[in-house]
Amino acid sequence: MDIATLIGLIAGILLVSSAVMMGPSPLVFINPPSVLIVFGGVVATTLIRFPLKTVLITFKVAANAFVDKVQPPYALIQKIVELAEKSRRDSLLSLENVPIEDTFLKKGIQLCVDGTEPEVLRETLRTEIDGIIARHKTGQQILRAMAEAGPAFGMIGTLIGLVQMLVGMSDPSTIGPSMAIAVLTTLYGSILANLFCIPLADKLAQRSALETQNKEIVIQGIMGILAANHPRVVETRLVSYLEPKVREQITAASQQKRAAAA
Amino acid sequence: MDIATLIGLIAGILLVSSAVMMGPSPLVFINPPSVLIVFGGVVATTLIRFPLKTVLITFKVAANAFVDKVQPPYALIQKIVELAEKSRRDSLLSLENVPIEDTFLKKGIQLCVDGTEPEVLRETLRTEIDGIIARHKTGQQILRAMAEAGPAFGMIGTLIGLVQMLVGMSDPSTIGPSMAIAVLTTLYGSILANLFCIPLADKLAQRSALETQNKEIVIQGIMGILAANHPRVVETRLVSYLEPKVREQITAASQQKRAAAA
Amino acid sequence: MDIATLIGLIAGILLVSSAVMMGPSPLVFINPPSVLIVFGGVVATTLIRFPLKTVLITFKVAANAFVDKVQPPYALIQKIVELAEKSRRDSLLSLENVPIEDTFLKKGIQLCVDGTEPEVLRETLRTEIDGIIARHKTGQQILRAMAEAGPAFGMIGTLIGLVQMLVGMSDPSTIGPSMAIAVLTTLYGSILANLFCIPLADKLAQRSALETQNKEIVIQGIMGILAANHPRVVETRLVSYLEPKVREQITAASQQKRAAAA
Amino acid sequence: MDIATLIGLIAGILLVSSAVMMGPSPLVFINPPSVLIVFGGVVATTLIRFPLKTVLITFKVAANAFVDKVQPPYALIQKIVELAEKSRRDSLLSLENVPIEDTFLKKGIQLCVDGTEPEVLRETLRTEIDGIIARHKTGQQILRAMAEAGPAFGMIGTLIGLVQMLVGMSDPSTIGPSMAIAVLTTLYGSILANLFCIPLADKLAQRSALETQNKEIVIQGIMGILAANHPRVVETRLVSYLEPKVREQITAASQQKRAAAA
Amino acid sequence: MDIATLIGLIAGILLVSSAVMMGPSPLVFINPPSVLIVFGGVVATTLIRFPLKTVLITFKVAANAFVDKVQPPYALIQKIVELAEKSRRDSLLSLENVPIEDTFLKKGIQLCVDGTEPEVLRETLRTEIDGIIARHKTGQQILRAMAEAGPAFGMIGTLIGLVQMLVGMSDPSTIGPSMAIAVLTTLYGSILANLFCIPLADKLAQRSALETQNKEIVIQGIMGILAANHPRVVETRLVSYLEPKVREQITAASQQKRAAAA
Repeated sequence: MDIATLIGLIAGILLVSSAVMMGPSPLVFINPPSVLIVFGGVVATTLIRFPLKTVLITFKVAANAFVDKVQPPYALIQKIVELAEKSRRDSLLSLENVPIEDTFLKKGIQLCVDGTEPEVLRETLRTEIDGIIARHKTGQQILRAMAEAGPAFGMIGTLIGLVQMLVGMSDPSTIGPSMAIAVLTTLYGSILANLFCIPLADKLAQRSALETQNKEIVIQGIMGILAANHPRVVETRLVSYLEPKVREQITAASQQKRAAAA
Repeated sequence: MDIATLIGLIAGILLVSSAVMMGPSPLVFINPPSVLIVFGGVVATTLIRFPLKTVLITFKVAANAFVDKVQPPYALIQKIVELAEKSRRDSLLSLENVPIEDTFLKKGIQLCVDGTEPEVLRETLRTEIDGIIARHKTGQQILRAMAEAGPAFGMIGTLIGLVQMLVGMSDPSTIGPSMAIAVLTTLYGSILANLFCIPLADKLAQRSALETQNKEIVIQGIMGILAANHPRVVETRLVSYLEPKVREQITAASQQKRAAAA
Repeated sequence: MDIATLIGLIAGILLVSSAVMMGPSPLVFINPPSVLIVFGGVVATTLIRFPLKTVLITFKVAANAFVDKVQPPYALIQKIVELAEKSRRDSLLSLENVPIEDTFLKKGIQLCVDGTEPEVLRETLRTEIDGIIARHKTGQQILRAMAEAGPAFGMIGTLIGLVQMLVGMSDPSTIGPSMAIAVLTTLYGSILANLFCIPLADKLAQRSALETQNKEIVIQGIMGILAANHPRVVETRLVSYLEPKVREQITAASQQKRAAAA
Repeated sequence: MDIATLIGLIAGILLVSSAVMMGPSPLVFINPPSVLIVFGGVVATTLIRFPLKTVLITFKVAANAFVDKVQPPYALIQKIVELAEKSRRDSLLSLENVPIEDTFLKKGIQLCVDGTEPEVLRETLRTEIDGIIARHKTGQQILRAMAEAGPAFGMIGTLIGLVQMLVGMSDPSTIGPSMAIAVLTTLYGSILANLFCIPLADKLAQRSALETQNKEIVIQGIMGILAANHPRVVETRLVSYLEPKVREQITAASQQKRAAAA
Repeated sequence: MDIATLIGLIAGILLVSSAVMMGPSPLVFINPPSVLIVFGGVVATTLIRFPLKTVLITFKVAANAFVDKVQPPYALIQKIVELAEKSRRDSLLSLENVPIEDTFLKKGIQLCVDGTEPEVLRETLRTEIDGIIARHKTGQQILRAMAEAGPAFGMIGTLIGLVQMLVGMSDPSTIGPSMAIAVLTTLYGSILANLFCIPLADKLAQRSALETQNKEIVIQGIMGILAANHPRVVETRLVSYLEPKVREQITAASQQKRAAAA
């Protein structure tokens, strides 16, 4: 569970709704036709912009922003170093039966065991990373397209309300409430974009970057195992992807382990 | 038929028009001079921006957004693998009489059969892809130029109406209706841009990406056939372009087929 | 004569002026001080932004948008293929006396005849293309800078008018007309940018792209002539720059010609 | 201590607050609910956008903008030249005991002494630079995201206040104060973005560029030491990173030193 | 003296001030607190954004926009061709005593005479060009940062004034003047950005491009001299950087000179 996404969303919703509740007549802020024009318009243009199938999976993609499932890279590195040690001690083929959780690492090791040539192996894994990045990007693009469409349809709704108010301006006492309702669509569009779509798209981008880095580490590690590099060389190469602090911890830990083993 | 484009457009139009109908005096929203200045202005600047011939084919290009004619890549891959098998079993020349629907694949196979050198073949096909991408881009550029010109001429129309209203402001009772009409052009420009031009341009971009990927698959496949690669190698290379799910299905299917053939 | 540029400009001017004429008091829209501040401001900042000499040639550059002088690429390709045939039949030196209209092609052929080395030849022609592109870009940059300055000085003018109106707001009957005049500069700036500067800059960009492509074709063709490639090979390479339809026409025509010659 | 950051911030705060104090009723400008919606909204969306851990270290990162800790490059160059001289005079191994303050240079020298191969050395140091740049970028991204969210939530707050004011518009005497409070959130968001977030993000970017250049100098210098280049050659290569004036000073100084040593 | 920069600035200032003078009550436009908040705010954020030292040299950098000191490239080319002739006739070493005005050319020739290797020579000169470009860019960045900060602090000032006006709205007769003063800061910010900062930044960019091109010509020329190319070959290579017209003039002139010398 990515607690930050949840806290942020709940805090944002609470803030906006308490600002509404504290004022007089909070019920004015709920206006079904305004909701319809903004959210309906956003959904309609999203359908025009993207293939139907892509739109349908967006909810699943957006849900990723709430899940904290990206594996920390150091666990991955420790696993790879372990595999490198086993491959050196026993043989490359002995890796076949090692249980591996990470599906991408598992696939790569399977290809190694199958005797795939290094160049083909690297290219196949890279094409898969490219595909993953492309699918992540589509999810972000849809959210950003919605972030653009929200305020646009908010303005269209406000303009429609404005025209209606201006035409019927003979009775000044109705100007205020009519104008209030006209402004509501702009408010809805703005909240949709700034509290939901843009932040979620950014979180997905951050997550995509982390996942991609993990996959890069896997490719680097597998190439090292294939080349039968010394496990410590593999480790040195992979930890350079980590932040200095984490790097020092992991290096110290593996030195201790080696000392204990010796 | 790309059902999403159609549903999106109809839903958008219904939403906006029902918002107009539900209000008082819906007829106010239809104002021919305002229509003329926004749509006329958009057409006029599009004529200045792009060569006449290019503008004339835009309607045809935009129509593509409603047609669902991009071939699914797995059908293409199956066809290519079939050709690779036939070429290996019989000979490269035997491909001459195989009926091929996809014109780009057909052209590539024809060049193979004619004995074109691999490097020339690749370069010729790539130049053609570049041309296709460039033509797709022009279609999108025109739509995006219209999406920019719409709100701009909407604002010009509103400013003209505003000046006229301000000059004749002696009679306060006419202010409302005059202002309402002045605002209409901004509304038209905003709808034109956000409901039609931007989403259609985005859909064309999505479609262009899919078509380009298909062409990439064709080039990769033909290079594999020319190099007399084993059909399974050709298949493995090409399915890496697909999403994981589709990839598993197609791989399973072709394994069954091979098992049945054996 | 590029008829589209002219039609677009005239249509745009007619649209805007008829919208002004149809309203009451069209004469209000002509206000010399407002004209002065917008157009003067645009000219002043353009002088600061670009070297004097560059600004002076802008009018000449902008005039290009009205002239339809870009040669269609197929005529150029036919000429190059003709030269390739003559060079093969007679000799490279025999090209010296062939009359060539296109100055860039002429220069390239002259360099061939002079015995320039291929690498030097290519580099010299490419540096010239780079120079042409750079000069075209400056023209577009100036138009885009004016498109930015127009609305900016429109707003400055409106702000000045607004301050003057607000200070003298004691007499309510003068508010309307004063505000009308204040708004005029924004209208001028918006028309200048959206009807003239941006569309003309875009047309110049389109034209520049076409001219550059022609020059690319010339370089490719001359390299082929220098390498003494078969004229048909030269043609095949060059027609890949054309749209499919035009390509088929030109290929069919040259096949007929060859059949007739045989 | 980066005095400019501090002076700028204090001057900006003084300017804004004196503009508030000089007007009537300065206390109106302090409105807790408005503060809450803008700052709360910014914090909430930042939590959604970035991983929790990243957000927590932002304050530490932003604090860097106040600290003047980037080492001047000439001190670094002098140190490297000194090391190059010692390495040439004694041996590469003799560098092990030289005290080095800069941790990055120290690590590089340690790797040299350990006998790391040049290519591996360069790649390891470069991966570390890439990591540093990426971490600096995240800090800037968070500040820029806040600079975007500030005005957005300012507008959301103003729209909410506007709706509340319009609904209760029956009593004209309350319009002014209600509207004043509605506008406050836009003011807060604008100050947050333009006085704090954008300038601090820019300062961090400037600092990051300087630090990265220092690291580049270290890599270049270490490669020179490894290649056993003459110290003067190392110096000539490194001073080309400096501004002309500083370069002349440092060159003159080291010539004097050499003359004195001779 | 770059006459265009000066004319543009004076014309712009005259235009704006005459628009102010022609209206009633021109003295309203001078309001010290408004000046303070806009200009003070711009200076304050510039101090936060950039290192103190960099800000202090901005005035010197901006002054460059008024000075017409970029050497015309043809004079430079003539000088280089002259040096190439002397080097061929006498020897490379004979260039040591030739007086050279351009400091960059002088430095390059000095390095030639010192016997620097071509690759090192090219890299050293290129690093220096990179440094010059970077320093020019910083100047432009500061001006563009000011162009962004101007309208931002203009809006902050207007919002503060707006809140003060709305709170004290009980007396309608004071609304106009208060609002007028509130709008002034937006006007100041807009003028600062659009008449000063943006155009000056653009002029500096233009100038930087010209200077960089001159330096490129020097490098190309020196490489030619080092390679002992024939002076005419050096000239042909260098004039390809010039516009066609200038190129023809210079080529004709040097042919005449050669004819006269023969």
